[in-house]
Amino acid sequence: MYDKDAPPGRVAADVPVDERFMTLALEHAATGLGRTAPNPPVGCVIVQGSEVVGRGFHPKAGEPHAEVFALREAGEQARGATAYVTLEPCSHFGRTPPCADALIAAGITRVVVAALDPNPQVAGRGVQRLRDAGIVVDVGVLEAQAVRQQAGFRSVIARGRPWVVAKYAMTLDGKVAALGEGNGAVSGEAARERAMHWRNELDAIAIGSGTLSLDDPALTVRGVPSGRDPRPVVFDRRAASDPQARAWREGAVLVTAPDAQVGTLEAAGITVLRADTLPDALRGLGELGLSSVLLEGGPTLLSAFLEQRLVDEVRVFFAPKLLGAGLSPLTGPIRPMHEAQTLDDVTVEPLGPDVLVTGLLSDIPRL
Amino acid sequence: MYDKDAPPGRVAADVPVDERFMTLALEHAATGLGRTAPNPPVGCVIVQGSEVVGRGFHPKAGEPHAEVFALREAGEQARGATAYVTLEPCSHFGRTPPCADALIAAGITRVVVAALDPNPQVAGRGVQRLRDAGIVVDVGVLEAQAVRQQAGFRSVIARGRPWVVAKYAMTLDGKVAALGEGNGAVSGEAARERAMHWRNELDAIAIGSGTLSLDDPALTVRGVPSGRDPRPVVFDRRAASDPQARAWREGAVLVTAPDAQVGTLEAAGITVLRADTLPDALRGLGELGLSSVLLEGGPTLLSAFLEQRLVDEVRVFFAPKLLGAGLSPLTGPIRPMHEAQTLDDVTVEPLGPDVLVTGLLSDIPRL
Repeated sequence: MYDKDAPPGRVAADVPVDERFMTLALEHAATGLGRTAPNPPVGCVIVQGSEVVGRGFHPKAGEPHAEVFALREAGEQARGATAYVTLEPCSHFGRTPPCADALIAAGITRVVVAALDPNPQVAGRGVQRLRDAGIVVDVGVLEAQAVRQQAGFRSVIARGRPWVVAKYAMTLDGKVAALGEGNGAVSGEAARERAMHWRNELDAIAIGSGTLSLDDPALTVRGVPSGRDPRPVVFDRRAASDPQARAWREGAVLVTAPDAQVGTLEAAGITVLRADTLPDALRGLGELGLSSVLLEGGPTLLSAFLEQRLVDEVRVFFAPKLLGAGLSPLTGPIRPMHEAQTLDDVTVEPLGPDVLVTGLLSDIPRL
Repeated sequence: MYDKDAPPGRVAADVPVDERFMTLALEHAATGLGRTAPNPPVGCVIVQGSEVVGRGFHPKAGEPHAEVFALREAGEQARGATAYVTLEPCSHFGRTPPCADALIAAGITRVVVAALDPNPQVAGRGVQRLRDAGIVVDVGVLEAQAVRQQAGFRSVIARGRPWVVAKYAMTLDGKVAALGEGNGAVSGEAARERAMHWRNELDAIAIGSGTLSLDDPALTVRGVPSGRDPRPVVFDRRAASDPQARAWREGAVLVTAPDAQVGTLEAAGITVLRADTLPDALRGLGELGLSSVLLEGGPTLLSAFLEQRLVDEVRVFFAPKLLGAGLSPLTGPIRPMHEAQTLDDVTVEPLGPDVLVTGLLSDIPRL
C-alpha cells in the first residue's frame, strides 16, 4: 500500500505510519466539504513524536491550503515532524504558493499522503519535490476514503462534470410519495437530519420543474451547525417554472433548453445554463465551479440521469411502512431484470426507524 | 421477567436460571417448525448442575412432546435436574399423557418455562400442577423469542387463523419484477437460500392465480438439509388455473369462490376450500391444520391481504440494483403517506449482496 521507492530521508523515519492521524486529517478535510469547489477538500495534521501539534483544512478556494494552517499552528514544532495530508501537496504556484515548499521550509521530515493529486499540474510532482528535498514520503494511506471524499474534485478533472449523488426515501413497497394530494414525509427525523448534512456537504442540489411546482421545496440546510445552503439547480427545459418559487434564491441555476424563453427568471439574477443534453448541462455545472450535485428530484429527472449513466452514487432511505398505490422513485424504460443497473460498495445503516442503503453505480468508472 | 410468586420447591433452587439453556431449547424447538401444526414447536433441555443431560423437541402432531424425548435421554440424571421448556408443559391428556406429570415422575426439581400455553385446556394449569408437586417454576425466560417462534400456534388459538408472513424481493427502486417477458431473479443466492428455509419452516405457501399462470412456480424446498415442502395454497376465485401447473401436487389447497366450477382440479385430489372472503379463507386454512402461511404471491394477492389487515409480518429482500419500469410489490388503494401501514420490531440484515428487512405490522394485535 505504501510507496516503497522512497529515497532515504534527511532524518531516519523511525515512527511508523499511523492511520489514525490520517483519519483525523480526513475529518478536518470534511469540514471544507461543499465550500472548496473547484478545489478539493483537504485536511492536514502535523505530528511530532506521537503528539498532534498542528491541524488544518482548506476552507475555501482562494484561501490558504490545509498545510498552511497546520504549519502555522505547529510553528517551531514542525521541525522534524511528520505531516499527514489527505491529498498530495501542490507543487505549483496557483492562487497560493506551493505547499510542498512550505513543508520543506518548515523542516518537516516525513510526509504521509492519502492520495495523489490528479490535477495534471501536480500529478506526482508534489511528492517528487518533497523527495528531492530529502523528505520521506508515503503515498496511499487510507487512499480509498480520501478518493471518495474528493470525488467531486476528481470527477471534474477526470470527466469534466460534477459527481452526482441521487437521494430518495421510499416505503418498504417502493413508493416515494402518495398519489394525489395526500402527503407526509416518508422517512423519519434521523433520515431528515442525515439528508441535511448531505445538502451541507455537496455543492449543488438539483430538482426538476415537476418537483418545483409540486412541492416548492426550500432546498436549504436546516439544523446543521455552521451549515451553508447548496446552490439550487432547477432542470426546466421550458423555463416555465413559477418565478416566485423558493428555489430561486441567490446563486440558483436554471438549466434550460438553448432556445427557451427565460424572461422573468433571468431578470431575477438567476444563472441561466443553456444545454441541449444532460451531459452538456453537467459539464456546464462543472464550469460554474460546482463539483458535486445532490439529485433530489422526482422520478422523471432521476430516470433521465440514470438512463444516460450520469448518476455516480445513490443514497436511499427505506421507511418501514407499506403504502399501496404511490409514486415509484424510478420509471421506464422497460428492460429485463438482468439488465438492471447494479451497485457496488453497498453500505447498510439503520437510522432511527429507517434504513439507509448507499452504493456506487457499478458501470461508472472509478475516479 | 421471572415469576416471583413461585412457592419454595422440594429442593432449594440454588442454580441460577441461565438463558443460554433456553436458547438451546429454542434451537431444538425450531427443528419442528413446519412439522408440528396444529401443535406448537416446542423444545426442552434438561440440565443437571451445569451439564445438559437431555434434549428433545416435538417432531410432529401425534408424536411425543419435547419433554418426553428430553427425559428419555436424561434417564436417571433427570432426578434433581432443571428442565428448560419453551412452552408450558401440558396438564391434560391429549394424544399423549400430561408432560407435567412426566416431569414430576422423573424427579425434576425445577422447571424454567419461556411462555405459558395459550390453549384454554392448559393456560397456567401446567405450571400449577408442577408447583403443586413442589417444583420451582420460573416463567417468562426468553418469552418474546418463544412467542414469536410459536406465532402460528398462537394465531390459530387467539384468532382462528394462521400467522401470515408476506415475502418479496425488490430492487432499490422498488420493483419486484420486470415488465413484459424479460425476467431474471431480483435477489441473490443467499436470499434464495434464506427464503428456502422459510418455506421449510412455514406450514403453507400461498400464491394467487396470476403468479401461477405467469411463473408456474414449483413452491418446493430446495437445498435445505432434511427440508420438507410446505402445502401449496392457490387463491383462485374462478378456479380457472391450469390443472397441469406444478403447484397442484399432493396436499395442495385451492381456495376458491363458493360457486366456482372446480371440475378437473377437484378430480385431481386437491383440497378445495370454498370461501367468500379472505378472512373466511384463512379460517378455513386454520381448520385444515395450517398454522402459518408464507405469502409469495404477486401484488394483487399481497394488496388484498394487506388491505384487510391480514398480514402479520413482512420479510423483504432489497437487491442493490435499479431497474426502471417494473412491477411494484403492492398496488392500491390510494391513501396519504401518513396513513401508510407501519412496521414494528424491524430487523435489518445484510445477506450476500442484498439486504433483508423484516417487521411486524403495527396494527396487528400481539399474540
